[in-house]
Amino acid sequence: MRARDLGLATGDSGRHNAITDVPGVGVGHVTLVRDPAVRTGVTAVVPGGIGPHAPLPAGLFTGNGHGKLVGATQLSELGLLESPVVLTATLSAFRAADALVTWMLAQPGCAGVRTFNPVVGECNDGHLSDIRARPVTEAHVLRAVATATGGPVTEGCAGAGTGTTALGFKAGIGTASRLLHAAGEQVTLGALVQANFGGTLRLHGRPITPSSLGLPGERLPPAGPEEVGSCMIVIATDAPVDARQLTRLARRAVFALGRVGADYSHGSGDYAIAFTTRTGHAPMPDHELNPLFGAAMDAVEESVLNSLLAAETTTGAEGRTAHALPGPRLLELLRT
Amino acid sequence: MRARDLGLATGDSGRHNAITDVPGVGVGHVTLVRDPAVRTGVTAVVPGGIGPHAPLPAGLFTGNGHGKLVGATQLSELGLLESPVVLTATLSAFRAADALVTWMLAQPGCAGVRTFNPVVGECNDGHLSDIRARPVTEAHVLRAVATATGGPVTEGCAGAGTGTTALGFKAGIGTASRLLHAAGEQVTLGALVQANFGGTLRLHGRPITPSSLGLPGERLPPAGPEEVGSCMIVIATDAPVDARQLTRLARRAVFALGRVGADYSHGSGDYAIAFTTRTGHAPMPDHELNPLFGAAMDAVEESVLNSLLAAETTTGAEGRTAHALPGPRLLELLRT
Amino acid sequence: MRARDLGLATGDSGRHNAITDVPGVGVGHVTLVRDPAVRTGVTAVVPGGIGPHAPLPAGLFTGNGHGKLVGATQLSELGLLESPVVLTATLSAFRAADALVTWMLAQPGCAGVRTFNPVVGECNDGHLSDIRARPVTEAHVLRAVATATGGPVTEGCAGAGTGTTALGFKAGIGTASRLLHAAGEQVTLGALVQANFGGTLRLHGRPITPSSLGLPGERLPPAGPEEVGSCMIVIATDAPVDARQLTRLARRAVFALGRVGADYSHGSGDYAIAFTTRTGHAPMPDHELNPLFGAAMDAVEESVLNSLLAAETTTGAEGRTAHALPGPRLLELLRT
Amino acid sequence: MRARDLGLATGDSGRHNAITDVPGVGVGHVTLVRDPAVRTGVTAVVPGGIGPHAPLPAGLFTGNGHGKLVGATQLSELGLLESPVVLTATLSAFRAADALVTWMLAQPGCAGVRTFNPVVGECNDGHLSDIRARPVTEAHVLRAVATATGGPVTEGCAGAGTGTTALGFKAGIGTASRLLHAAGEQVTLGALVQANFGGTLRLHGRPITPSSLGLPGERLPPAGPEEVGSCMIVIATDAPVDARQLTRLARRAVFALGRVGADYSHGSGDYAIAFTTRTGHAPMPDHELNPLFGAAMDAVEESVLNSLLAAETTTGAEGRTAHALPGPRLLELLRT
Repeated sequence: MRARDLGLATGDSGRHNAITDVPGVGVGHVTLVRDPAVRTGVTAVVPGGIGPHAPLPAGLFTGNGHGKLVGATQLSELGLLESPVVLTATLSAFRAADALVTWMLAQPGCAGVRTFNPVVGECNDGHLSDIRARPVTEAHVLRAVATATGGPVTEGCAGAGTGTTALGFKAGIGTASRLLHAAGEQVTLGALVQANFGGTLRLHGRPITPSSLGLPGERLPPAGPEEVGSCMIVIATDAPVDARQLTRLARRAVFALGRVGADYSHGSGDYAIAFTTRTGHAPMPDHELNPLFGAAMDAVEESVLNSLLAAETTTGAEGRTAHALPGPRLLELLRT
Repeated sequence: MRARDLGLATGDSGRHNAITDVPGVGVGHVTLVRDPAVRTGVTAVVPGGIGPHAPLPAGLFTGNGHGKLVGATQLSELGLLESPVVLTATLSAFRAADALVTWMLAQPGCAGVRTFNPVVGECNDGHLSDIRARPVTEAHVLRAVATATGGPVTEGCAGAGTGTTALGFKAGIGTASRLLHAAGEQVTLGALVQANFGGTLRLHGRPITPSSLGLPGERLPPAGPEEVGSCMIVIATDAPVDARQLTRLARRAVFALGRVGADYSHGSGDYAIAFTTRTGHAPMPDHELNPLFGAAMDAVEESVLNSLLAAETTTGAEGRTAHALPGPRLLELLRT
Repeated sequence: MRARDLGLATGDSGRHNAITDVPGVGVGHVTLVRDPAVRTGVTAVVPGGIGPHAPLPAGLFTGNGHGKLVGATQLSELGLLESPVVLTATLSAFRAADALVTWMLAQPGCAGVRTFNPVVGECNDGHLSDIRARPVTEAHVLRAVATATGGPVTEGCAGAGTGTTALGFKAGIGTASRLLHAAGEQVTLGALVQANFGGTLRLHGRPITPSSLGLPGERLPPAGPEEVGSCMIVIATDAPVDARQLTRLARRAVFALGRVGADYSHGSGDYAIAFTTRTGHAPMPDHELNPLFGAAMDAVEESVLNSLLAAETTTGAEGRTAHALPGPRLLELLRT
Repeated sequence: MRARDLGLATGDSGRHNAITDVPGVGVGHVTLVRDPAVRTGVTAVVPGGIGPHAPLPAGLFTGNGHGKLVGATQLSELGLLESPVVLTATLSAFRAADALVTWMLAQPGCAGVRTFNPVVGECNDGHLSDIRARPVTEAHVLRAVATATGGPVTEGCAGAGTGTTALGFKAGIGTASRLLHAAGEQVTLGALVQANFGGTLRLHGRPITPSSLGLPGERLPPAGPEEVGSCMIVIATDAPVDARQLTRLARRAVFALGRVGADYSHGSGDYAIAFTTRTGHAPMPDHELNPLFGAAMDAVEESVLNSLLAAETTTGAEGRTAHALPGPRLLELLRT
C-alpha cells in the first residue's frame, strides 16, 4: 500500500512513482537481517554512468548536521557528484565509503584515477539493529551498486531502511516522483528517503501516534537524544539546473519534512542531496524554478509516507519492536 | 480573534502570547495608511537596553535569500545583535537602516561610537502599497523604536504588516510565545512574523483558499515571481543559549513555515533572526535544546495563523484587494 | 607612481592596469574633502547596462564579516549582481544603498520594478574623517554612478578611499588588471580595492613600517579594535564563469591580502565581490580556473600596493595624520 | 634544521615549538615506506581524554573544498570534536575513519555508544606513493592514535607527510607553537600541517624554486589539476574560546598559507580544524582575539616552513623524485 492508494498524495507522478522515473537512475538494495539483532542494509542510488569522468551537477543542504555524511565539502565546492549515493547505518558509513573507492578503482577508464569523492549518507538504526557490530561489508555495498536498476523500488524495510523508524512508527526507504513542465519541456523529479526522524506524524492536521491507532504506545526511539533521528534525502531530476539551483532545491527537500511532522531535533542528521542527470545545457532561469521546488516538496512528503506505509512491524535488537503504520486502520481514523 | 480562540493552537503560552512575554522585549508599530495607495509601515522589536555597548547573542538563518536583510554578515560573524530589529517594506529598508544609525548616534554613551550594525528585515508589500514611493521616513522608524513597549502586540494590518499578504489572504504581523523548561528553569520563547509568503494555507491537512471560503478567488499576489513572498521571523528568548545555538534555533523557525503551507518560492526572502536576552551565563547543553526547538516551531506556526486571523480585508494600490481569512467561516469549514 | 613602476608587480596587465580594462566596466568617484574633518567619498564600480533587467553572474566571499555589506544574502542566493557596486564610509552605507534604489527607480524600463538589491560595501574612515556626520548624500552617490567611465582610474585619496588607511600608511583606492588565457581565449580580470586594513606591510619579505621609513611612528589607527580595518574588494572579469565559480574566485581575492601583510583582525570587514560581464555562455570547466585564480590574487596584491603608493599624506579629524608610503624612500630601503 | 634555526621565524614559542606544547595534546605517527612505491602513513593529533563523553569545542574552515575531510558537517553543527584528528592519504581516509570507529567502540565507558563522528583529513600523496593500493590499515591508525604523545614531534617525511610535496619541494608534517597572553593569562596555541599544496615558495619576497637552488627543475606535481595540492591544518589551543571563535581562528590558519606562496589552486583541499582543550569557561571577548589570530597565522607559516626543512629528498612511485629544500643553500641564496 502506498500513500496515494490511501488518497494521501496526489499530483502527476512518473510510471513507478519512484526516483527511478528519472531516466537512467537506478536503485539497489542489500538487506541484512540476521537474528537476533541485525536489521540493517545498504541502498544505492546510482545515476547511470556516474564516475570520476562523468560527474553530474549536484547540490547539498544540511538542515541539521548531526550526521556523518561523507563527501560533503567537495560536493559543495565543485557542485558535482561523481559517485553513487550510498545510504546505510551510521557506524557503517565509512566502510561503505571505502567500498565506493574500491568500486571506482575497478571502473573502466579509471586505471589512472588517484582521487575520488565517495558520497555516503546514513541514519542511526541502532534502536532495532546491533549497529556496533558494523555488519555491512564491502561486498554488500558493491552488490547494492551493481544491482541497481530502474523500475519499481522496494520500499519500507529494505536496504538502508531495514532498521529505521520515523515519527513513532517503523519506517524505512520511501520514494516518489513528479512529472512537470520546466524550461519548456516535460521533466521528471524523483525523491528517495531513508526515514529515521523524530516527531509526531501529522495527517489531515491530526497527530497520528501508535496509541491513537491502538498500537502499543512504545515511544520510539527511547534512546538518548544524541541518537534520535535523521533523514537522508536524495533528489534526482533531469531538468537543466546547475549546482547552485540544485542547492536551492535541496533546501526545499529538507523543508518538506516539517509537513509530515518532523521535529528537526538536535540529534537528527537531516540532509538532502540533489543532482541532475542533464549536463551540457544552459541552466533554466531561477524564476522558473517554482514548479521544481514544489515537486521536490511534494515528492519528499509522499516518499516519507510511502516509507511508513510499506514498512512492516519489526522486532530487533534487545527485543525492541517498532510497529508499522497500519494503513486500513489509519484510513478509518482519518475518516472519523 | 487569535488562533487559539479557534482551537488552532495549543501549548503553554506567556501572558500575552506574544514576543513581549520575553522580559524586556518591546514592540513598536508605526502604521502608514494614506489613500489611495500607501499601505505600509514599520515594526520594531526592541530588546531593552540594546545598543553597541550591550549587544545580545544572536543567530540568523537564511531559508531563501531573495531578500534585502540589512546586517546579515556582521550578525553572523560576531553572533551579536546590537540594534533593534526593524521590519518594513523592501524599498524602504535602507532608509530604515540609516534611521537606526541616527538612533544609535543619539543613544546615551554613544558619543564616541563610529561603527554600528543596524538590522532591518523587509517584505515586499508592493501588491497593496505604492512601494516605489518609499513612504517610510526616518521619523517613522525612530517613533517605532521609541514607542516599543511590552504587553499585548497589535497583530494583522499594523506596522510592517499593514500591506502584506500570505497564503492567499491578507496577512501582516503575528506573534505568539511559549513557556517551557530549559536548563533547569522556566524560560520564555517568543516569535514575531511579518508574513508575506506564497503557498496554500493548510489547516487540519486541508488546503484553505479564498474560494473554498466563498471569497473572490483573486490569486495573491498576481505579481511577477520576483516579488512574491517573504517571511521575516524574529525569535526572542531568555534561555541561556549562545550564537551557534541561536542559529540552530533560527533554522527551525524557518522550517516551521512549511507546516502552514509555505511554498518557499524562488522569490521569497525567508529569514529568521533569533536572539537571547540572557548574557553572562554558560550556554545550556545542545542535547537539551529540543524543547526550545519545538517551542520555536510552534510559536512561529501560531504567529502566522495569528497574522492571518487578525488582518482585515484591505484594498490598496491600483484598487487591488486582499481578503482577510474569515475566522467564523473557517471554523465552520473545518468542522465539516 | 604605481607598484610596477617600482618593480613591485609584474604580469601581463591590461591597457590601464585597472578594473576598467574589463570591457564595459566603469568607475566613478565623488571625493568629499571639507575642513576640518570630512575626508570621505563614494566610489562606484558600474558594469555597463547593469540593472534589474540585466543582472550579471556574481559571487561573494566574507573573509571576516565585521562589516556592513549591503546586499549580501540575495547576491549569494541568486548568484546575481543587479546593481552598481558602491563603496563608501561605514555609517553612510545605508544612505548609499537608498540612493541606489533612487537610481534604479529612474532607470529606463524600470517603471514597474518593485524590488531591487543594491550592493554597497564600506570601510571605516573614522580615523581621518568625521564619520558620524554622514556627509555622503544621495546626490553624491548618483553622481559617482553617473560619471563612472572606462579608462584610467584615480587611485589613492579618491572617492571611498579619501579617508582610509592600511598597513600603517595612508591608503585608499587601488586597482590593477591581468590579461590571461582562459577557456581558449584571451580574457581580462580586474580588481579594485578600498584598502583600510590592519597589519604590517610586507615587501620582499621585510616588514615596512612608517618608522622604518623615517616617518613619524604613529600607529594607525589608534582607535578601538572594533573600528580597525576592512578591505572591500571588487573583482570583474569577462571570462565565462558562473556564480559558484565566481564565489571561488572571490575567496582567492581575500586570501591575497595575506601576501602584503594583512592581519585579518577581529574588527575587519574583509569582503570580495566578483562578477563577470559575460552571460549566455556555458561556464568554463573548474579545472581550468587556476590561471583566473592566480590573476585574481596577483591583481588584488597589486591593487593594494597601488592604493598605498598613490595616496597622499592626509590630516583629518581631530588633527590626526596618516602618512603616505614614500615611493622613492621605499625603493631605497628595499635596495639595502 | 627548523625555520627558526635559519632565522625564518621568530616569536615566542613553546618548549618544543610544536602543537604538543598545548598541554594534553599528543601526536602519533605511523610511517609506511615499502619499496618500490609506498610512501605514506598516518598522523594522529590526540587531545588527551578525547571521546564521545568528553568532546572539545571546535571549528572548521574550508578554504577550498576539493578534499575528502570526514566529519565536517557534525563538527560544524555542534561545534564539537569528539575524535582524534587523523591525517592520511586521500584514498585511505575512509578506512582511517572506520578505524576510529573501532577505536571508539573499545574506549572505556563507550560500551553503549551507538554514534560517533570520526574526523579524518587527507592529502593526495599519489605523486610519490601508490595511493590506489590503500596501504593504510586499521592497525596503522590505531597505532598512531595509541602512540600519540607529547614532546617533540617528528617533522617532514613522517606519518601522513611521508609522501607529500609542497611549493615544488618535498614536504610533509610541520608544526610550531606560540605562547601569548589572552584573556588575562598565558595561553598556548599550536599548529600542525600536512603540507601538500601548490604554488611557489616565497621567502623574503623572493620566489624560491628548485631550479633557483640548483636542483633538478622537475615541476611538482606533474599530475592532473584534480590531484594537485591540499593542506590540512590542525590548530590546538588552551585559550577559553568557543566554537564560533574557533571557526574564526580556523579561517586565519588557511589565510596564512598565502604568506608562504600557496596558490590555493582548484584541486586543493585546504582545511583548518581548530579546537581548544579548555572547557567550562566563559569564552573570551571577540575583541581580544587578535593576538590569538596572529599566533595562528604565524604558527601555520612556521609549520609549513618546518615541513619543508625537515623533509628529505624522496624517490617513490614510478621513480619520481621530490627534492628536499636544502637549508644551507637556501640560507646562502637569501643572503645574496
